[in-house]
This record gives sequence, C-alpha cells and structure tokens, in this order.
Amino acid sequence: MTTASRNHASAPIAILTDFGYRDHYAGVLSGVVARIAPNARVIDLSHGIPPQSITAGALVLAHSWRFFPDRTIFLAVVDPGVGTERLPIAIASRAGARFVGPDNGVLMLAAQAAGIQRAVVLESARYRLPATSATFHGRDIFAPAAAWLARGVAITSLGRALPKPQPLKLPEPEESARQVQGEVIYVDGFGNLVTNISGASVVRMKARFREKSLSVRIEKGAAMNLYRSYADAPVNSPLATIGSFDFLEIAVRDSSAERRLGCGVGARVTLSPRG
Amino acid sequence: MTTASRNHASAPIAILTDFGYRDHYAGVLSGVVARIAPNARVIDLSHGIPPQSITAGALVLAHSWRFFPDRTIFLAVVDPGVGTERLPIAIASRAGARFVGPDNGVLMLAAQAAGIQRAVVLESARYRLPATSATFHGRDIFAPAAAWLARGVAITSLGRALPKPQPLKLPEPEESARQVQGEVIYVDGFGNLVTNISGASVVRMKARFREKSLSVRIEKGAAMNLYRSYADAPVNSPLATIGSFDFLEIAVRDSSAERRLGCGVGARVTLSPRG
Amino acid sequence: MTTASRNHASAPIAILTDFGYRDHYAGVLSGVVARIAPNARVIDLSHGIPPQSITAGALVLAHSWRFFPDRTIFLAVVDPGVGTERLPIAIASRAGARFVGPDNGVLMLAAQAAGIQRAVVLESARYRLPATSATFHGRDIFAPAAAWLARGVAITSLGRALPKPQPLKLPEPEESARQVQGEVIYVDGFGNLVTNISGASVVRMKARFREKSLSVRIEKGAAMNLYRSYADAPVNSPLATIGSFDFLEIAVRDSSAERRLGCGVGARVTLSPRG
Repeated sequence: MTTASRNHASAPIAILTDFGYRDHYAGVLSGVVARIAPNARVIDLSHGIPPQSITAGALVLAHSWRFFPDRTIFLAVVDPGVGTERLPIAIASRAGARFVGPDNGVLMLAAQAAGIQRAVVLESARYRLPATSATFHGRDIFAPAAAWLARGVAITSLGRALPKPQPLKLPEPEESARQVQGEVIYVDGFGNLVTNISGASVVRMKARFREKSLSVRIEKGAAMNLYRSYADAPVNSPLATIGSFDFLEIAVRDSSAERRLGCGVGARVTLSPRG
Repeated sequence: MTTASRNHASAPIAILTDFGYRDHYAGVLSGVVARIAPNARVIDLSHGIPPQSITAGALVLAHSWRFFPDRTIFLAVVDPGVGTERLPIAIASRAGARFVGPDNGVLMLAAQAAGIQRAVVLESARYRLPATSATFHGRDIFAPAAAWLARGVAITSLGRALPKPQPLKLPEPEESARQVQGEVIYVDGFGNLVTNISGASVVRMKARFREKSLSVRIEKGAAMNLYRSYADAPVNSPLATIGSFDFLEIAVRDSSAERRLGCGVGARVTLSPRG
Repeated sequence: MTTASRNHASAPIAILTDFGYRDHYAGVLSGVVARIAPNARVIDLSHGIPPQSITAGALVLAHSWRFFPDRTIFLAVVDPGVGTERLPIAIASRAGARFVGPDNGVLMLAAQAAGIQRAVVLESARYRLPATSATFHGRDIFAPAAAWLARGVAITSLGRALPKPQPLKLPEPEESARQVQGEVIYVDGFGNLVTNISGASVVRMKARFREKSLSVRIEKGAAMNLYRSYADAPVNSPLATIGSFDFLEIAVRDSSAERRLGCGVGARVTLSPRG
C-alpha cells in the first residue's frame, strides 16, 4: 500500500445537481475534480433534482448531509441564475461539512442545520478553471472550488468573506391546538408527497390526542389514517406517515400518491383529530 | 487506520436498488458506506430496477455478480416489505461474493449460483445506524452491514444464523421433444424481451433440429428467426437471439420489441421447428 | 504533484454509453474494470446517450475529454453494429488521453482534437474476457481493454495497428460573408438545441457586424437575439447563445427549446444580421 492511500486525508465530495443523466454535464464535474484532486472520492448524491428547483435541491441536501462523513464537501449545483449577479459561494460548518454552490438558498437548509461557521465568495481566479464560461459555473467555478477544498486549501483562500448568504424561504405550517395545516413541498421519485409538517409536529399532536383518532386530509380528499410505516397500511390505499425526510408524507403503498390523488407541490394538507 | 484499509483489503461494494435517480435515496447509501468504510470502492450497479420488482432485481443481480471482483459485497435493496416482518439478511457464498438485502428472494438467484455458504439475520444493533427508521432500511440497516463487511467484520458478527433464506420463485419453461414453452420475465431498458428459456435450452433444440428450421413465436404473433446476434437480423424486424442474460431474448434491431410487439412481462413464448 | 498521485499510477477510466440507467449493463462495465484494475478510479461520464446515436456520443465525448486528467482512458460504447464486422479499437493521443470503443466514429471527434498518435484493433484474446458474447462487447472486449490500459499494458499489446480509423461525418455549416447556415445536431437534456455553428464562427460574424444587429432563426421561426448567457435573456423567451459545447445553441430560459419551438435534430439554423 502506498503513502497515497494511507494518507487519503482527502475529504469526499458529494455532488448534487439538476443536470439529469442524459448529457455529460454531471460527469464533467467529476472529471474536473479528478484533475485537481486525484485522490478525492466522489459520490453522486443525485443529478435528478427537478430542473431549476432550488427548494427540491435544498430539501434533498438537508436530509442527506448527516449521513455522509463529517468533513464531506457538498457540491450542489441547482443554478437557474447562472451568468447573473448571484454569487458563487462556499460555506464551512461547525459540524464539519462544507458546502459549495450558488448563493440562491440551495445550500442553506443543510448549512443552517450544520451550523454556519464561515461563508466566502468564490472569486479567486487561482481556484477556478482558466477560462470561465457564462453558462457552466458548475464546471468552471464550483467543481474546482470543491476539489481545492478537498486538496486542503483553506476556505478563506477562495475569496472574501460573505457575511450573510441568501436564506431559502419555505412555507411554514400553521399549528394550532386542534390542527396543523401545511402543504406539499416535494414529490419524490416514488410519487410520495412530502409536506412541510415536521415529524416533531406530528409527535406533538400524538401527545395531545389519541394516536388512532388522528387523520390527515389532502385538499378536499377523504381522511387518511396515520401509520408507523408504509407496510402497516393496506396495499393500494392512501396513508400518511413520517417519512425518511422526517416530515409528514402522504403515500400509497406499492403505488404513486402523486398519480392516485392527483396532487403535487403546493397542495394543502391538514393533520387533525377525526370528526 | 486498520490493517484492512492499509492493505486496501477492502472489498468493493456494488449497489443495486429500485430507488431511481431523482432523489437522494441511492446517494445516501454511498454516504453511509463512506462514513463506515472510507476506503471501500462503491460501484453503482443500477438504481433503475422497476419499483418493487423483486424478480427484476434478482435477474439483474444473477447476471451481474460473476463479472465483479470475487469478494464483492452486493447491496441489493428492492424492498416492498420494508417495515414489516420480512428479515434483513446477509449471505456469504462459496464463490466469495457476499449479498446483503431483504429476505424476499431478491438475493437468491445470484446467491444460489454462487453457492450459499452461510446466511445471517442483520440483528446486531452495533452494525446498524443508531436510529433505525421504519421506512429506509437501505440506509439504516443494509448499507451499514455492507460497509462493516467491507471493513472486515465477520458475517457471523452481524446476527444469528438463518438456516433457510426465502427462495425466489420464477416460472419454469416447459420443455418437450418438439418445443420449449416459456414466457417473458423481464423487459430491459432497450425494450428487449427477456424470457425464461435458457441459452442451454436453445442449444439443446439446435442439436435436435436444423438451426435454420427453428423459429420463435410470442403470443399469437408471426414466427421469428433465431439469429446469432442482433446485427445479423435486418433492421427494424423482430428477431430472437441468446442475449447477454444467457436467456432467449426477443428484440427488434435498432428499436424496442416491447413497443413494436406490444408484449411485456408474462407474454407466452414458444421455440419450435417451423411448420 | 504529491507522492499520492505519483503512485496512484493508474489512470482514471471515464465511461460513456447509451445503456441507460435501468439495467445492469453500465454497472457491469465497472465490475469488469474492478476485477482487472482494482485501483483504477472509474467515472461515469454518462450512460444517457440517446440509444445508438453515434453523433451524440461523439459530441459529448468531444466536449468532455479536455476537462479530465491528461491520461484518462475514455471507454465509449455506443455500438449499434455490435456483432458485425465493425472493429473494436483503441486510440492513443498526443494529448495523453486514450480512447476505447467501436470503430464507428464515436471516438473520433475527441481523438482528432486530442491528436491521434496510434490506433490498434482489440484482437488480443489475452486482453478480453475468456468468453466473448456476440451482443455485449462493452463487457467482453472494451471494458477489459480499458482496464488493462489502466494497469499499464502498452496499447500496442492489444492488437495490430489500424492505419485509419473510421471518421465521423458531421454536417458542415455554410458560411458566407452575410450569414452562417447550419443545423441542429444534438438536443441536450434541458431541451437546448445545439447546432453545428461553432463559437469561432459566431465570433467572426460579431467582428463583421454590430453584435446587436445579429439574430438567429430556426426553420421559419421568428428572429431571436444573441445573448452572452442564458440569464441575460427574458424568462420564457427563445434565445441564442454560445453554449458550453462551444457551439451556437438555441435555448428558452427556464424551459425547453425543443418543446417550445417544436424543433429537433436536423432543423435549419441561420445566423445573420437583421433585416
């Protein structure tokens, strides 16, 4: 075994984009990383974020980062404003994770959960590709920054401090004594409808009412039961459960809730006792 | 740094799921592996298995494992029963390959071909994530088990022995002196129709009859010729050949047999001499 | 260069195919590589090339290779002629990159740009899998060749010299003093229409006419403005820009030009001054 793998000091880089799987766009990011940081392990978190959906990217990142090694560098490119004045940034967190991407909120759910320690603007020409295009900052600015971080370059070398990165604004659920009202904020690849009602919020309602009396409605649909898992529900009937996002989720066992209920992002969801 | 990782003894982990490419579900498995076994090489075998299709997962695994390094750990998560009583298991094989996944048959075509040496139930809390969700055993139970195996933990440390994992039941073709009757069991991404008629079965028929006299019918369709390769057939006309699964396969050169013939899983297929 | 990368002598392998993401076909290539070259880093460039589109594969490769490490081995399997007389080849380039795939042109845009130094036919049985199928040369011939190159085997060991690999024929734009006429040669995953009019050609037109006077038409559609970046254009209106392929590209900001303009591969595109 070589010095190389014993040192393997290099933190992994996890890549999240909305580039899809048809073109070379996602693969080229790994190529750029490999040129700069040949020993960094690269993990494709996903390239299937719905095009230009900053909210979807932010949610996916927020619910993923904890499961990766502590010093992972997350390279998140969901960037409808590429070529405009929006800033390219990197964030170091108290938890250890680093985040690289556009300053449009896509990094912020995760970065805030990890504790923002320092944010910088990626303005040092030294840590970009020599020629920077107007349309592909993922390749020319973000991937190089992630790779240099993996190589051990200090985040402060990448550019000036940014005091306050742009937050992501998500709709807040309304919680009263009798009910929680929220909405669908993400539809996953199985057609599960992820709401903005947190697991903690569901637990509070269970403390207030008998668990069996609680039900969930989406828009004007029929009341659904709350189950501990998908599999506790009958096949093919709609159910609500706390999903792996740790949010209340509406699903149809062995099918797609999106298709079966005809609901998507923005649909109103109510958790309350029956009757 | 353990002896394991100094030697790069770490076996690769090949991941197969039905999670698709939209969400973070597949990527998070690699994150969990990287936390536990930072030096293990991870290969994405596929995340495109049709949702909850245990048969498709089992077939794909059965026709892949031989091409990987001998000690590869296959992490196969096609798991419609997540959260129910179905057991999480790991299997060690005489050929060297290890298999981790639910006890629903998805591992079994490959494991039986590799020779089952030992199966265990993944019940040791030490080799799971600290908190186990009801909906995402891939992340919380299966990926950690695969990673600990890659780290060199003995399979017997993961839990009690399981004498008899659940087999996968596939339809058997009926072979007589004059013909073989089977059915489509898998449609691949090119729209090729993979049947349960083995390459060996086709070879037996070729020994009994003149090769040129043999033909294949699907449902009540016209007789198709048997070719040595896709490319021997005229463009755009249906053909039968022994495909890379080593099963009789029905294809349309430069097109999709599924779409062109309007047939899918379950369609009856007959191999017999013409006339 | 650190000790790390000096030792890690193994060049990375970047894989490009039209296998899609449903089956194991793409994953098995990585398995074969891992058996032969366990220390080679594998990067999935893309498996989403439109089925059997040699032009799309060639374009994607041509616009990717520069961004990878110098000695990268590109394994490109877009191979409608598998099982026919078309030759399996490998090419070494003056720039350092190596290319492995079928002799149907898919390698050639990249290889010519990198400077062809030597081409060989992959005929040595020693560097193939023991049994070679008629339908899956990616697994049986191409992946092993790439892996053996990564292991350090000389390209000349793989087989006899091939004096003249088949070129890829792309339509040439017609450039006159007043206008450039080209066509759409590729539609990317965002629905952007990539033409065969080069960035250099656009720059020449800008030198001849005032930049603001230039416009682009596709088929008989309305004239579009030429922008420096996607983001400079109003949302939802068609625009032309030099894209990341370094070709003139037609796009609709935050939408799909393919769908909005109803145009695809082959549509005529004209760049000229207005009026």
